[in-house]
Amino acid sequence: MRILIIGANGTIGRAVSAELQARHEIITAGRNSGELRVNMADLASVQAMYAAAGKLDAVVSTAGNVHFGALAEFTPEQYQIGLQDKLLGQVNLVLAGQHLLNDGGSFTLTSGILSEEPIVYGSGASMANAALEGFVRSAAIELPRGLRINVVSPTVLTESLPSYGPYFRGFESAPAARVALAYSKSVEGANSGKVYKVQ
Amino acid sequence: MRILIIGANGTIGRAVSAELQARHEIITAGRNSGELRVNMADLASVQAMYAAAGKLDAVVSTAGNVHFGALAEFTPEQYQIGLQDKLLGQVNLVLAGQHLLNDGGSFTLTSGILSEEPIVYGSGASMANAALEGFVRSAAIELPRGLRINVVSPTVLTESLPSYGPYFRGFESAPAARVALAYSKSVEGANSGKVYKVQ
Ligand SMILES: NC(=O)c1ccc[n+]([C@@H]2O[C@H](COP(=O)([O-])OP(=O)(O)OC[C@H]3O[C@@H](n4cnc5c(N)ncnc54)[C@H](OP(=O)(O)O)[C@@H]3O)[C@@H](O)[C@H]2O)c1
Ligand SMILES: NC(=O)c1ccc[n+]([C@@H]2O[C@H](COP(=O)([O-])OP(=O)(O)OC[C@H]3O[C@@H](n4cnc5c(N)ncnc54)[C@H](OP(=O)(O)O)[C@@H]3O)[C@@H](O)[C@H]2O)c1
Repeated sequence: MRILIIGANGTIGRAVSAELQARHEIITAGRNSGELRVNMADLASVQAMYAAAGKLDAVVSTAGNVHFGALAEFTPEQYQIGLQDKLLGQVNLVLAGQHLLNDGGSFTLTSGILSEEPIVYGSGASMANAALEGFVRSAAIELPRGLRINVVSPTVLTESLPSYGPYFRGFESAPAARVALAYSKSVEGANSGKVYKVQ
Repeated sequence: MRILIIGANGTIGRAVSAELQARHEIITAGRNSGELRVNMADLASVQAMYAAAGKLDAVVSTAGNVHFGALAEFTPEQYQIGLQDKLLGQVNLVLAGQHLLNDGGSFTLTSGILSEEPIVYGSGASMANAALEGFVRSAAIELPRGLRINVVSPTVLTESLPSYGPYFRGFESAPAARVALAYSKSVEGANSGKVYKVQ
Protein backbone atom coordinates (compact mmCIF):
# COMPACT_ATOMS: atom_id res chain seq x y z
CA MET A 1 0.00 0.00 0.00
CA ARG A 2 0.95 3.64 -0.50
CA ILE A 3 0.34 5.33 2.89
CA LEU A 4 0.47 9.03 3.76
CA ILE A 5 1.17 9.76 7.45
CA ILE A 6 0.43 13.30 8.67
CA GLY A 7 2.35 13.95 11.89
CA ALA A 8 4.87 11.26 10.97
CA ASN A 9 7.65 12.98 12.89
CA GLY A 10 5.78 13.03 16.21
CA THR A 11 5.94 10.65 19.16
CA ILE A 12 3.11 8.47 17.84
CA GLY A 13 3.84 9.14 14.15
CA ARG A 14 7.42 7.85 14.33
CA ALA A 15 6.24 4.57 15.86
CA VAL A 16 3.45 4.18 13.29
CA SER A 17 5.93 4.81 10.47
CA ALA A 18 8.29 2.22 11.91
CA GLU A 19 5.47 -0.34 12.18
CA LEU A 20 4.12 0.18 8.66
CA GLN A 21 7.29 0.82 6.63
CA ALA A 22 8.38 -2.82 6.68
CA ARG A 23 5.40 -3.74 4.51
CA HIS A 24 4.33 -0.52 2.78
CA GLU A 25 5.47 2.62 0.98
CA ILE A 26 5.28 5.54 3.45
CA ILE A 27 5.01 9.24 2.58
CA THR A 28 5.54 11.54 5.57
CA ALA A 29 3.89 14.91 6.18
CA GLY A 30 3.91 17.53 8.92
CA ARG A 31 3.80 21.23 9.59
CA ASN A 32 7.56 21.69 9.86
CA SER A 33 8.85 18.20 9.10
CA GLY A 34 8.31 15.36 6.62
CA GLU A 35 8.46 15.02 2.85
CA LEU A 36 5.27 17.06 2.42
CA ARG A 37 4.49 20.23 4.44
CA VAL A 38 0.88 20.89 5.42
CA ASN A 39 -1.23 22.77 7.92
CA MET A 40 -4.17 20.38 8.11
CA ALA A 41 -6.35 23.07 9.77
CA ASP A 42 -6.38 24.75 6.31
CA LEU A 43 -8.42 22.84 3.69
CA ALA A 44 -6.50 24.47 0.80
CA SER A 45 -3.21 23.32 2.33
CA VAL A 46 -4.61 19.79 2.66
CA GLN A 47 -5.72 19.82 -0.98
CA ALA A 48 -2.24 20.94 -2.06
CA MET A 49 -0.70 18.13 0.00
CA TYR A 50 -2.91 15.52 -1.70
CA ALA A 51 -2.05 16.93 -5.13
CA ALA A 52 1.65 16.51 -4.32
CA ALA A 53 1.21 13.05 -2.76
CA GLY A 54 -0.32 11.30 -5.79
CA LYS A 55 -2.43 8.12 -5.52
CA LEU A 56 -2.89 6.76 -1.99
CA ASP A 57 -4.34 3.64 -0.38
CA ALA A 58 -4.34 4.92 3.19
CA VAL A 59 -4.13 8.19 5.11
CA VAL A 60 -3.03 8.12 8.74
CA SER A 61 -3.15 11.18 10.98
CA THR A 62 -1.14 11.28 14.20
CA ALA A 63 -1.39 15.08 14.39
CA GLY A 64 -3.48 17.72 16.10
CA ASN A 65 -3.20 20.34 18.84
CA VAL A 66 -5.52 21.16 21.74
CA HIS A 67 -5.35 23.71 24.54
CA PHE A 68 -5.09 22.54 28.16
CA GLY A 69 -6.32 24.80 30.94
CA ALA A 70 -8.62 25.17 33.94
CA LEU A 71 -12.36 25.14 33.18
CA ALA A 72 -12.73 28.21 35.41
CA GLU A 73 -10.56 30.22 33.01
CA PHE A 74 -11.18 28.52 29.67
CA THR A 75 -12.27 30.88 26.86
CA PRO A 76 -14.23 30.06 23.68
CA GLU A 77 -11.07 30.98 21.72
CA GLN A 78 -9.09 28.32 23.58
CA TYR A 79 -11.70 25.65 22.74
CA GLN A 80 -11.35 26.77 19.11
CA ILE A 81 -7.73 25.54 19.07
CA GLY A 82 -8.76 21.92 19.53
CA LEU A 83 -11.83 22.32 17.30
CA GLN A 84 -9.97 23.99 14.41
CA ASP A 85 -6.68 22.09 14.59
CA LYS A 86 -7.16 18.59 16.03
CA LEU A 87 -10.82 18.13 15.05
CA LEU A 88 -11.42 20.02 11.78
CA GLY A 89 -7.79 19.51 10.73
CA GLN A 90 -8.33 15.75 10.71
CA VAL A 91 -11.83 16.19 9.24
CA ASN A 92 -10.25 18.19 6.37
CA LEU A 93 -8.11 15.14 5.55
CA VAL A 94 -11.36 13.19 5.05
CA LEU A 95 -13.34 15.92 3.25
CA ALA A 96 -10.62 16.31 0.61
CA GLY A 97 -9.37 12.72 0.65
CA GLN A 98 -12.73 10.99 0.13
CA HIS A 99 -12.63 12.09 -3.52
CA LEU A 100 -8.98 11.06 -4.08
CA LEU A 101 -8.10 7.83 -2.26
CA ASN A 102 -7.95 4.59 -4.23
CA ASP A 103 -11.06 2.38 -3.99
CA GLY A 104 -11.08 0.46 -0.70
CA GLY A 105 -8.67 2.93 0.87
CA SER A 106 -8.78 4.00 4.51
CA PHE A 107 -8.49 6.93 6.89
CA THR A 108 -7.11 6.41 10.39
CA LEU A 109 -7.38 9.40 12.73
CA THR A 110 -6.22 10.00 16.32
CA SER A 111 -8.34 10.98 19.32
CA GLY A 112 -7.26 10.02 22.88
CA ILE A 113 -8.43 8.52 26.16
CA LEU A 114 -9.69 11.91 27.44
CA SER A 115 -12.79 11.50 25.29
CA GLU A 116 -13.98 8.98 27.88
CA GLU A 117 -11.85 9.50 30.99
CA PRO A 118 -11.45 13.16 31.94
CA ILE A 119 -8.51 14.81 33.66
CA VAL A 120 -8.34 18.23 35.29
CA TYR A 121 -7.42 20.88 32.64
CA GLY A 122 -8.52 18.48 29.87
CA SER A 123 -11.96 19.79 28.82
CA GLY A 124 -10.68 21.03 25.45
CA ALA A 125 -9.13 17.64 24.70
CA SER A 126 -12.18 15.70 25.91
CA MET A 127 -14.36 17.83 23.62
CA ALA A 128 -12.17 17.49 20.51
CA ASN A 129 -11.47 13.77 21.03
CA ALA A 130 -15.12 12.87 21.57
CA ALA A 131 -16.10 14.96 18.53
CA LEU A 132 -13.62 13.02 16.39
CA GLU A 133 -15.10 9.72 17.53
CA GLY A 134 -18.64 10.89 16.72
CA PHE A 135 -17.49 12.12 13.32
CA VAL A 136 -15.74 8.84 12.50
CA ARG A 137 -18.80 6.72 13.41
CA SER A 138 -20.88 8.90 11.12
CA ALA A 139 -18.47 9.33 8.20
CA ALA A 140 -18.05 5.54 8.07
CA ILE A 141 -21.63 5.08 6.81
CA GLU A 142 -21.32 7.73 4.07
CA LEU A 143 -17.90 7.09 2.56
CA PRO A 144 -18.10 5.85 -1.06
CA ARG A 145 -16.17 3.21 -3.04
CA GLY A 146 -15.42 0.92 -0.09
CA LEU A 147 -13.44 3.61 1.70
CA ARG A 148 -13.06 2.98 5.44
CA ILE A 149 -12.43 5.20 8.45
CA ASN A 150 -11.40 4.47 12.05
CA VAL A 151 -9.91 6.40 14.94
CA VAL A 152 -7.25 5.32 17.42
CA SER A 153 -7.78 6.49 21.01
CA PRO A 154 -4.54 5.98 22.97
CA THR A 155 -3.94 6.35 26.68
CA VAL A 156 -0.96 8.52 27.63
CA LEU A 157 2.20 7.27 25.94
CA THR A 158 5.06 5.96 28.05
CA GLU A 159 7.37 8.20 25.98
CA SER A 160 5.24 11.24 26.91
CA LEU A 161 5.25 10.65 30.68
CA PRO A 162 8.20 13.02 31.28
CA SER A 163 6.03 15.92 30.04
CA TYR A 164 2.41 14.79 30.67
CA GLY A 165 2.88 12.39 33.58
CA PRO A 166 1.81 14.79 36.37
CA TYR A 167 -1.60 15.28 34.68
CA PHE A 168 -2.18 11.53 34.20
CA ARG A 169 -1.44 10.12 37.65
CA GLY A 170 -2.78 6.58 37.93
CA PHE A 171 -3.24 6.13 34.19
CA GLU A 172 -1.50 3.07 32.78
CA SER A 173 0.73 4.32 29.95
CA ALA A 174 1.32 2.48 26.67
CA PRO A 175 4.61 2.42 24.74
CA ALA A 176 4.43 4.03 21.28
CA ALA A 177 5.28 0.71 19.63
CA ARG A 178 2.16 -0.86 21.20
CA VAL A 179 -0.03 2.11 20.23
CA ALA A 180 1.27 1.75 16.66
CA LEU A 181 -0.31 -1.72 16.42
CA ALA A 182 -3.78 -0.16 16.55
CA TYR A 183 -2.94 1.91 13.46
CA SER A 184 -1.80 -1.27 11.72
CA LYS A 185 -5.09 -2.95 12.70
CA SER A 186 -7.05 -0.07 11.19
CA VAL A 187 -4.98 0.30 7.97
CA GLU A 188 -4.36 -3.40 7.32
CA GLY A 189 -7.69 -4.70 8.67
CA ALA A 190 -11.17 -4.33 7.19
CA ASN A 191 -13.27 -2.59 9.88
CA SER A 192 -14.84 0.82 9.55
CA GLY A 193 -16.39 3.27 12.02
CA LYS A 194 -14.41 1.81 14.94
CA VAL A 195 -12.73 3.50 17.87
CA TYR A 196 -9.57 1.48 18.56
CA LYS A 197 -8.76 2.09 22.21
CA VAL A 198 -5.21 1.41 23.40
CA GLN A 199 -5.26 1.47 27.19
CA MET B 1 -35.54 26.13 42.58
CA ARG B 2 -35.11 29.04 40.21
CA ILE B 3 -34.47 27.49 36.77
CA LEU B 4 -33.45 29.21 33.53
CA ILE B 5 -34.39 27.31 30.36
CA ILE B 6 -32.67 28.38 27.12
CA GLY B 7 -34.70 27.16 24.14
CA ALA B 8 -37.83 27.01 26.31
CA ASN B 9 -40.10 27.67 23.35
CA GLY B 10 -38.85 24.71 21.29
CA THR B 11 -40.26 21.20 20.91
CA ILE B 12 -38.18 19.82 23.78
CA GLY B 13 -38.09 23.09 25.75
CA ARG B 14 -41.87 23.39 26.01
CA ALA B 15 -42.12 19.87 27.45
CA VAL B 16 -39.29 20.50 29.92
CA SER B 17 -40.94 23.74 31.05
CA ALA B 18 -44.25 21.91 31.53
CA GLU B 19 -42.55 19.18 33.58
CA LEU B 20 -40.59 21.53 35.84
CA GLN B 21 -43.00 24.43 36.32
CA ALA B 22 -45.28 22.51 38.67
CA ARG B 23 -42.51 22.46 41.30
CA HIS B 24 -40.16 25.32 40.37
CA GLU B 25 -39.88 28.93 39.23
CA ILE B 26 -39.07 28.92 35.49
CA ILE B 27 -37.40 31.73 33.51
CA THR B 28 -37.55 31.22 29.75
CA ALA B 29 -34.95 32.33 27.19
CA GLY B 30 -34.46 32.01 23.44
CA ARG B 31 -33.19 33.79 20.38
CA ASN B 32 -36.57 35.19 19.31
CA SER B 33 -38.84 33.99 22.12
CA GLY B 34 -38.97 33.79 25.90
CA GLU B 35 -38.66 36.31 28.73
CA LEU B 36 -34.94 36.78 28.05
CA ARG B 37 -33.41 37.04 24.56
CA VAL B 38 -30.00 35.52 23.95
CA ASN B 39 -27.76 34.18 21.22
CA MET B 40 -25.88 31.58 23.20
CA ALA B 41 -23.19 31.32 20.48
CA ASP B 42 -22.06 34.79 21.68
CA LEU B 43 -20.46 34.76 25.15
CA ALA B 44 -21.23 38.46 25.72
CA SER B 45 -24.91 37.81 24.98
CA VAL B 46 -24.87 34.90 27.46
CA GLN B 47 -23.27 37.11 30.12
CA ALA B 48 -25.96 39.77 29.55
CA MET B 49 -28.67 37.10 29.89
CA TYR B 50 -27.25 35.93 33.22
CA ALA B 51 -27.06 39.52 34.47
CA ALA B 52 -30.75 39.95 33.65
CA ALA B 53 -31.77 36.56 35.08
CA GLY B 54 -30.50 37.09 38.64
CA LYS B 55 -29.67 34.22 41.01
CA LEU B 56 -30.24 30.72 39.60
CA ASP B 57 -30.21 27.15 40.91
CA ALA B 58 -30.31 25.42 37.54
CA VAL B 59 -29.67 26.17 33.88
CA VAL B 60 -31.25 23.93 31.25
CA SER B 61 -30.43 24.20 27.56
CA THR B 62 -32.72 22.68 24.95
CA ALA B 63 -31.22 24.80 22.18
CA GLY B 64 -28.65 24.51 19.44
CA ASN B 65 -28.40 24.30 15.65
CA VAL B 66 -26.41 21.96 13.43
CA HIS B 67 -26.12 21.62 9.65
CA PHE B 68 -27.30 18.43 7.94
CA GLY B 69 -25.79 17.44 4.60
CA ALA B 70 -23.98 14.77 2.62
CA LEU B 71 -20.41 14.01 3.74
CA ALA B 72 -19.35 14.20 0.08
CA GLU B 73 -20.32 17.88 -0.03
CA PHE B 74 -19.82 18.99 3.59
CA THR B 75 -17.58 22.05 4.04
CA PRO B 76 -15.56 23.12 7.10
CA GLU B 77 -17.88 26.15 7.33
CA GLN B 78 -20.92 23.86 7.63
CA TYR B 79 -19.28 21.91 10.49
CA GLN B 80 -18.69 25.29 12.14
CA ILE B 81 -22.45 25.79 12.50
CA GLY B 82 -22.80 22.89 14.90
CA LEU B 83 -19.50 23.66 16.61
CA GLN B 84 -20.21 27.36 17.15
CA ASP B 85 -23.94 27.18 17.89
CA LYS B 86 -24.91 23.84 19.43
CA LEU B 87 -21.53 23.00 20.99
CA LEU B 88 -19.84 26.26 22.00
CA GLY B 89 -23.22 27.94 22.55
CA GLN B 90 -24.02 25.45 25.30
CA VAL B 91 -20.40 25.55 26.53
CA ASN B 92 -20.75 29.35 26.86
CA LEU B 93 -23.66 28.77 29.27
CA VAL B 94 -21.24 26.81 31.47
CA LEU B 95 -18.20 29.09 31.09
CA ALA B 96 -20.19 32.13 32.24
CA GLY B 97 -22.59 30.32 34.56
CA GLN B 98 -19.97 28.46 36.64
CA HIS B 99 -19.15 31.76 38.36
CA LEU B 100 -22.80 32.76 38.93
CA LEU B 101 -24.99 29.79 39.84
CA ASN B 102 -25.95 29.23 43.45
CA ASP B 103 -23.86 26.62 45.31
CA GLY B 104 -24.99 23.10 44.41
CA GLY B 105 -26.62 24.33 41.20
CA SER B 106 -26.70 22.39 37.95
CA PHE B 107 -26.32 22.64 34.19
CA THR B 108 -28.31 20.30 31.92
CA LEU B 109 -27.38 20.42 28.24
CA THR B 110 -28.78 18.65 25.17
CA SER B 111 -26.92 16.40 22.70
CA GLY B 112 -28.79 13.67 20.77
CA ILE B 113 -28.71 10.02 19.72
CA LEU B 114 -26.58 10.78 16.64
CA SER B 115 -23.53 10.98 18.87
CA GLU B 116 -23.66 7.18 19.04
CA GLU B 117 -25.92 6.05 16.21
CA PRO B 118 -25.17 7.77 12.92
CA ILE B 119 -27.60 8.58 10.11
CA VAL B 120 -26.83 9.61 6.54
CA TYR B 121 -26.37 13.44 6.36
CA GLY B 122 -25.77 13.54 10.15
CA SER B 123 -21.97 13.90 10.46
CA GLY B 124 -22.23 17.50 11.72
CA ALA B 125 -24.72 16.47 14.41
CA SER B 126 -22.73 13.35 15.38
CA MET B 127 -19.64 15.54 15.80
CA ALA B 128 -21.32 18.27 17.87
CA ASN B 129 -23.32 15.85 20.03
CA ALA B 130 -20.32 13.65 20.84
CA ALA B 131 -18.24 16.74 21.60
CA LEU B 132 -20.89 17.91 24.09
CA GLU B 133 -20.83 14.56 25.86
CA GLY B 134 -17.01 14.64 26.11
CA PHE B 135 -17.15 18.20 27.43
CA VAL B 136 -19.78 17.34 30.05
CA ARG B 137 -17.81 14.34 31.37
CA SER B 138 -14.78 16.59 31.72
CA ALA B 139 -16.44 19.76 33.08
CA ALA B 140 -18.09 17.66 35.80
CA ILE B 141 -14.76 17.02 37.52
CA GLU B 142 -13.72 20.69 37.51
CA LEU B 143 -16.89 22.55 38.48
CA PRO B 144 -16.58 24.27 41.89
CA ARG B 145 -18.98 24.69 44.85
CA GLY B 146 -20.90 21.44 44.31
CA LEU B 147 -22.09 22.53 40.87
CA ARG B 148 -23.22 19.63 38.67
CA ILE B 149 -23.49 19.10 34.92
CA ASN B 150 -25.24 16.46 32.79
CA VAL B 151 -26.39 16.13 29.21
CA VAL B 152 -29.60 14.62 27.86
CA SER B 153 -29.25 12.62 24.63
CA PRO B 154 -32.71 12.03 23.15
CA THR B 155 -33.70 9.84 20.24
CA VAL B 156 -35.86 11.53 17.60
CA LEU B 157 -38.97 13.04 19.18
CA THR B 158 -42.38 11.73 18.20
CA GLU B 159 -43.44 15.36 17.71
CA SER B 160 -40.56 15.86 15.24
CA LEU B 161 -41.33 12.84 13.04
CA PRO B 162 -43.34 14.90 10.50
CA SER B 163 -40.15 16.82 9.65
CA TYR B 164 -37.28 14.44 10.55
CA GLY B 165 -38.97 11.04 10.17
CA PRO B 166 -37.57 10.20 6.71
CA TYR B 167 -33.99 10.52 8.03
CA PHE B 168 -34.67 8.35 11.10
CA ARG B 169 -36.36 5.27 9.61
CA GLY B 170 -36.37 2.43 12.12
CA PHE B 171 -35.53 4.65 15.09
CA GLU B 172 -37.98 4.35 17.96
CA SER B 173 -39.21 7.89 18.70
CA ALA B 174 -39.90 9.27 22.18
CA PRO B 175 -42.68 11.72 23.05
CA ALA B 176 -41.44 15.09 24.34
CA ALA B 177 -43.11 14.49 27.71
CA ARG B 178 -41.01 11.34 28.19
CA VAL B 179 -37.83 13.11 27.10
CA ALA B 180 -38.60 15.85 29.63
CA LEU B 181 -38.30 13.34 32.49
CA ALA B 182 -34.56 13.02 31.81
CA TYR B 183 -34.17 16.77 32.37
CA SER B 184 -36.05 16.42 35.65
CA LYS B 185 -33.73 13.56 36.64
CA SER B 186 -30.70 15.75 35.94
CA VAL B 187 -32.01 18.94 37.61
CA GLU B 188 -33.76 17.33 40.57
CA GLY B 189 -31.31 14.44 41.07
CA ALA B 190 -27.73 14.52 42.33
CA ASN B 191 -25.60 12.97 39.57
CA SER B 192 -22.92 14.79 37.61
CA GLY B 193 -21.02 14.01 34.42
CA LYS B 194 -23.79 11.74 33.11
CA VAL B 195 -25.22 11.29 29.65
CA TYR B 196 -28.94 10.64 30.12
CA LYS B 197 -30.03 8.71 27.05
CA VAL B 198 -33.72 8.67 26.17
CA GLN B 199 -34.24 5.99 23.54
N1 LIG C 1 1.49 11.60 23.32
C1 LIG C 1 0.48 11.09 24.01
O1 LIG C 1 0.62 10.64 25.15
C2 LIG C 1 -0.89 11.07 23.40
C3 LIG C 1 -1.89 10.28 23.98
C4 LIG C 1 -3.17 10.27 23.42
C5 LIG C 1 -3.42 11.04 22.30
N2 LIG C 1 -2.43 11.81 21.75
C6 LIG C 1 -2.74 12.61 20.56
O2 LIG C 1 -2.04 12.12 19.46
C7 LIG C 1 -1.67 13.19 18.59
C8 LIG C 1 -0.17 13.14 18.37
O3 LIG C 1 0.47 13.18 19.62
P1 LIG C 1 2.07 13.18 19.74
O4 LIG C 1 2.42 13.12 21.18
O5 LIG C 1 2.65 12.16 18.81
O6 LIG C 1 2.37 14.67 19.20
P2 LIG C 1 3.76 15.31 18.71
O7 LIG C 1 4.92 14.49 19.13
O8 LIG C 1 3.69 16.75 19.08
O9 LIG C 1 3.65 15.19 17.12
C9 LIG C 1 2.64 15.83 16.43
C10 LIG C 1 2.94 15.76 14.94
O10 LIG C 1 1.84 16.33 14.25
C11 LIG C 1 2.25 17.37 13.40
N3 LIG C 1 1.22 18.41 13.41
C12 LIG C 1 0.69 19.06 14.49
N4 LIG C 1 -0.24 19.93 14.10
C13 LIG C 1 -0.33 19.83 12.76
C14 LIG C 1 -1.11 20.47 11.77
N5 LIG C 1 -2.03 21.42 12.09
N6 LIG C 1 -0.94 20.13 10.46
C15 LIG C 1 -0.04 19.20 10.12
N7 LIG C 1 0.74 18.55 11.01
C16 LIG C 1 0.59 18.87 12.31
C17 LIG C 1 3.57 17.85 13.95
O11 LIG C 1 4.32 18.36 12.89
P3 LIG C 1 5.69 19.23 13.08
O12 LIG C 1 6.50 18.56 14.15
O13 LIG C 1 6.32 19.14 11.73
O14 LIG C 1 5.25 20.61 13.47
C18 LIG C 1 4.15 16.56 14.52
O15 LIG C 1 4.81 15.82 13.50
C19 LIG C 1 -2.16 14.48 19.27
O16 LIG C 1 -3.39 14.86 18.72
C20 LIG C 1 -2.35 14.06 20.71
O17 LIG C 1 -3.39 14.78 21.36
C21 LIG C 1 -1.18 11.83 22.27
N1 LIG D 1 -36.43 17.34 18.04
C1 LIG D 1 -35.76 16.18 18.07
O1 LIG D 1 -36.23 15.15 17.57
C2 LIG D 1 -34.41 16.12 18.73
C3 LIG D 1 -33.84 14.88 19.03
C4 LIG D 1 -32.58 14.84 19.62
C5 LIG D 1 -31.90 16.03 19.89
N2 LIG D 1 -32.49 17.23 19.57
C6 LIG D 1 -31.73 18.46 19.87
O2 LIG D 1 -32.40 19.17 20.88
C7 LIG D 1 -32.24 20.58 20.67
C8 LIG D 1 -33.62 21.22 20.64
O3 LIG D 1 -34.40 20.58 19.64
P1 LIG D 1 -35.89 21.04 19.33
O4 LIG D 1 -36.43 20.11 18.31
O5 LIG D 1 -36.62 21.26 20.60
O6 LIG D 1 -35.58 22.45 18.60
P2 LIG D 1 -36.56 23.66 18.29
O7 LIG D 1 -37.98 23.26 18.40
O8 LIG D 1 -36.05 24.26 17.01
O9 LIG D 1 -36.27 24.68 19.49
C9 LIG D 1 -34.99 25.22 19.67
C10 LIG D 1 -35.08 26.34 20.68
O10 LIG D 1 -33.75 26.80 20.94
C11 LIG D 1 -33.66 28.19 20.72
N3 LIG D 1 -32.34 28.47 20.12
C12 LIG D 1 -31.80 27.93 19.01
N4 LIG D 1 -30.57 28.41 18.80
C13 LIG D 1 -30.32 29.27 19.82
C14 LIG D 1 -29.22 30.11 20.15
N5 LIG D 1 -28.10 30.14 19.40
N6 LIG D 1 -29.32 30.87 21.28
C15 LIG D 1 -30.43 30.83 22.04
N7 LIG D 1 -31.50 30.06 21.76
C16 LIG D 1 -31.45 29.31 20.65
C17 LIG D 1 -34.81 28.54 19.80
O11 LIG D 1 -35.17 29.87 20.06
P3 LIG D 1 -36.16 30.74 19.14
O12 LIG D 1 -37.30 29.85 18.74
O13 LIG D 1 -36.56 31.85 20.04
O14 LIG D 1 -35.34 31.18 17.95
C18 LIG D 1 -35.86 27.54 20.23
O15 LIG D 1 -36.57 28.02 21.36
C19 LIG D 1 -31.46 20.74 19.36
O16 LIG D 1 -30.09 20.93 19.67
C20 LIG D 1 -31.63 19.39 18.69
O17 LIG D 1 -30.52 19.03 17.89
C21 LIG D 1 -33.72 17.30 19.02
